[in-house]
Amino acid sequence: MMKLYFAANTCALASHIALEEAGAEYSTVRINFAVHEQRSPEYLAINPKGRVPALITDRGILTETPAMLAFIAQSFPKANLAPWDDPFRFAEVQAFNSYLCSTVHVAHAHRMRGTRWADDPAAIEAMKRKVPDSVGACFDLIETKMLCGPWVMGESHTICDPYLFTIARWLEGDGIDPARFPKVKAHRDRMLERPAVRKVVAAEQG
Amino acid sequence: MMKLYFAANTCALASHIALEEAGAEYSTVRINFAVHEQRSPEYLAINPKGRVPALITDRGILTETPAMLAFIAQSFPKANLAPWDDPFRFAEVQAFNSYLCSTVHVAHAHRMRGTRWADDPAAIEAMKRKVPDSVGACFDLIETKMLCGPWVMGESHTICDPYLFTIARWLEGDGIDPARFPKVKAHRDRMLERPAVRKVVAAEQG
Repeated sequence: MMKLYFAANTCALASHIALEEAGAEYSTVRINFAVHEQRSPEYLAINPKGRVPALITDRGILTETPAMLAFIAQSFPKANLAPWDDPFRFAEVQAFNSYLCSTVHVAHAHRMRGTRWADDPAAIEAMKRKVPDSVGACFDLIETKMLCGPWVMGESHTICDPYLFTIARWLEGDGIDPARFPKVKAHRDRMLERPAVRKVVAAEQG
Repeated sequence: MMKLYFAANTCALASHIALEEAGAEYSTVRINFAVHEQRSPEYLAINPKGRVPALITDRGILTETPAMLAFIAQSFPKANLAPWDDPFRFAEVQAFNSYLCSTVHVAHAHRMRGTRWADDPAAIEAMKRKVPDSVGACFDLIETKMLCGPWVMGESHTICDPYLFTIARWLEGDGIDPARFPKVKAHRDRMLERPAVRKVVAAEQG
């Protein structure tokens, strides 16, 4: 049985939803960021990066959301969460998730994790000020060029959907009105109609 | 035949090497960053993100290095560049490449691409100052926890190797002495013994 280490309101939500959509048997462990539990010796032994999510499998530990999502999809093929048999379509799925991971999440992280990239308090404030612009530009691209609808890849629900849903939930906190992005907003609402998504969102807030 | 859009000294080198290692038939197009060709209407029609690399395939266009590397490996299975038949091992490959993409490359990018995340010139200078620390911390983790040796994943050369090689070549420019990381340095030297790597490095500099 897999075990997911997560914290509320983080990108771990994407893998949490994917586990539920896949019909996996899994347990969860909540990491408390308020007391910096992600930097505790116990957690660093699990994930030396000191971040969530981490997924314990019977083969070993996995980190990094795009890799975990693909692993969950490949481990539960009946859930049909990724087009394994089509290298090009699979690469499109991976490219979307890679963009979320390396560009969109990173832009967002400059609001609250600026100390990763600068020490000067004024620089950290300058980073915060740019988040609405930088995250907004990412969502412009998602809205106009990437999100096919009704799901990210079109008619098939895939591992791109919980990941976009997760990051799109940060828009308001990043100072961006989701109404600017009608397709993204509709996708977010559509995701909340799925029983797996409602169950996991409730569990993480609980 | 695939076509790779690249610029010298960028992460496109990883996909370029992988195409060569895979024995693919491919052509290349050099994008000139000095005249901002990556922002030209012609190139934005290929990759609206305005970045390299981009890979033209007979099915369509792919971007994002981890996705392109996996696609190249899956398209040329005889080259044995990724463990497709083992979801856990494949996820480990993806996790390593995702870390390079979303954390290591991002830390490095704060040296020359700070305007992505702040407008204030003093903030951009503050970001530059932290690059040796932030990139150095990433390579500490790679050196001590991730790089198995002789190749990233151990005995098998995979799509992790050209990507690590590419980013490790930026160490000196980032103000870091590669001698701090003997395993990374040995890996970089080992990569340069491969004919495919030498050929592509020479072609990009040419």
